[in-house]
Amino acid sequence: MKNKQLDSWIKKRKDQKKKRSVDTLFEGIRNGNNSALSASITLIESSLEKDKKLAAQLIKKCLPFSGNSIRIAITGVPGVGKSSFIEEFGKTILKEKKQLCVLAVDPSSIKSGGSILGDKTRMDSLSKSENAFIRPSATGITLGGVARNTRESIILCEAANYDVIIIETVGVGQSEISAHSMVDFFLVLMLSGAGDELQGIKRGIMELADAVFITKADGNNINASKIAKQQIKNALHLFPPKDNNWVPVTEICSSKEGYNISLAWEIINQFTKELNDIGWIENNRVEQKIKAFENTLQSKIYFDLLNNQKENIKEVKKQIRSNKISPYQAVEEILKKSI
Amino acid sequence: MKNKQLDSWIKKRKDQKKKRSVDTLFEGIRNGNNSALSASITLIESSLEKDKKLAAQLIKKCLPFSGNSIRIAITGVPGVGKSSFIEEFGKTILKEKKQLCVLAVDPSSIKSGGSILGDKTRMDSLSKSENAFIRPSATGITLGGVARNTRESIILCEAANYDVIIIETVGVGQSEISAHSMVDFFLVLMLSGAGDELQGIKRGIMELADAVFITKADGNNINASKIAKQQIKNALHLFPPKDNNWVPVTEICSSKEGYNISLAWEIINQFTKELNDIGWIENNRVEQKIKAFENTLQSKIYFDLLNNQKENIKEVKKQIRSNKISPYQAVEEILKKSI
Repeated sequence: MKNKQLDSWIKKRKDQKKKRSVDTLFEGIRNGNNSALSASITLIESSLEKDKKLAAQLIKKCLPFSGNSIRIAITGVPGVGKSSFIEEFGKTILKEKKQLCVLAVDPSSIKSGGSILGDKTRMDSLSKSENAFIRPSATGITLGGVARNTRESIILCEAANYDVIIIETVGVGQSEISAHSMVDFFLVLMLSGAGDELQGIKRGIMELADAVFITKADGNNINASKIAKQQIKNALHLFPPKDNNWVPVTEICSSKEGYNISLAWEIINQFTKELNDIGWIENNRVEQKIKAFENTLQSKIYFDLLNNQKENIKEVKKQIRSNKISPYQAVEEILKKSI
Repeated sequence: MKNKQLDSWIKKRKDQKKKRSVDTLFEGIRNGNNSALSASITLIESSLEKDKKLAAQLIKKCLPFSGNSIRIAITGVPGVGKSSFIEEFGKTILKEKKQLCVLAVDPSSIKSGGSILGDKTRMDSLSKSENAFIRPSATGITLGGVARNTRESIILCEAANYDVIIIETVGVGQSEISAHSMVDFFLVLMLSGAGDELQGIKRGIMELADAVFITKADGNNINASKIAKQQIKNALHLFPPKDNNWVPVTEICSSKEGYNISLAWEIINQFTKELNDIGWIENNRVEQKIKAFENTLQSKIYFDLLNNQKENIKEVKKQIRSNKISPYQAVEEILKKSI
């Protein structure tokens, strides 16, 4: 064979191989093969250029099969008992012969290299069940990266026919806003004992809640939990109504005693039913996607500008600090230079 | 004279004239001439290219003389009694031989062409005083434009030696976030009677409050006001502490009876003293300026992209809506096209 022919032959072979691997993963996902799903999520988390291309093809294939799950965010500060809650909550769902995914979003893992779901043993029976899929968040990536990975993981999990997808976050930062922007229902877990314990929750998070559950309402803690429930109810009452007119529910629960855990699931079903009927869920999901597009586009082009104009921006910031130019004049300086 | 000489002579004359007008305005401002201040604010509000250049020169001259006032935002829904409160509050300040500015930010005026301070008669004694300067917001501009104008008006008013600057907003939208980003102290006015009346305040605004004053605490309304005070206190308690550790104050007041109005001024003085001592005020102002620069830069370049790629963006949004591509793939499409 001539060199040119050989090159073309090699290229063809490679393309076939790529296609086969994307096709294999896709078929595995559609057939409910969890290893294929796991490998696919690893693929979309990869930062290698060639993996990115394959991931894009895979997601494109999965997209038409996505959208058929209930998407729930569960958040709360460390110590609130998220794992125990999700374990019991998940068991309730599995009993209904439904399939459950738990995806973790953990910004602290970006710094520490650890992960809230690093050991699956914290959700013992879920991780043993064939009908549950637990996936810790990838480490070593930026928050924007985590958001993208999680949003694309949801697509894959839905193509794998999972009925319920839980996004677990730690309740202390930007990741909750991000999780809120990709789910239908936002559940906040809180500890009883108003004041100090509640302060771990970041400003603005409480307002996102569709339901607040006060955990560990057992033993000596029951009364304190009831008081906390009333306080939180009063506080939520001060917020204006949501655009979908859903009134957030506040309840107490105990994972240890299995108390009110199935109530949480009933509330979510009620929510889904009511808001599906008026078309809100579908509409909200479309809006979420468009928003994700716009936000990502905006931050990408800004990031590029920051890189290209690094020195100039440093200089104008110095001038702003020393009151030599106004912030708006500084913007004009930079825009002039970047034409 | 030859043509070339003539041209050069005309140009020189024009430059002198421009310089003189900027210099005249600047001297007027520094000498406490309110007509000059008023004309200057009109100049920075102008959208004509030649006015913009003059405005930039004027602001540059004023910048070194800015920064010496207490900057306060006062917000509340229509009907809460903002004008009456500001009238009484302002009188307290004038009694101390201080000079007061009231600048209005009113997003509704953008749509309606009206203005909350359209007739100054609502603040009768303030508008009659030589030591008070009341400026309604300009109409027919975007919110970003209002923010810029207000921020630059503050610079001019400070160069004119005003001691206290009040930014008045209507409590129902983005303008509060904007006002919060340019003041030291954020005062929220609320009506008694929890529930419906409070719902006019936009989500997220309550959290910005350094103080909440419940208005119209007079006559039959006193008890309801006291109950509202306790409810709001409890609600604010649920928010985590502010970065400056200031604990928001909740109080009742009556503009009609002059009750607790001077208390508001005392609280602000206390705030200013405490936070000046630890350097927070200065630091916060620098951060605000840097943030204004970054946000404006980000939205300007995004706006340009939206304009240049209008058709392409419309197309990818359609594909996102119909589940043909993911939001992130759509971003890559657009970025590829804009290189």
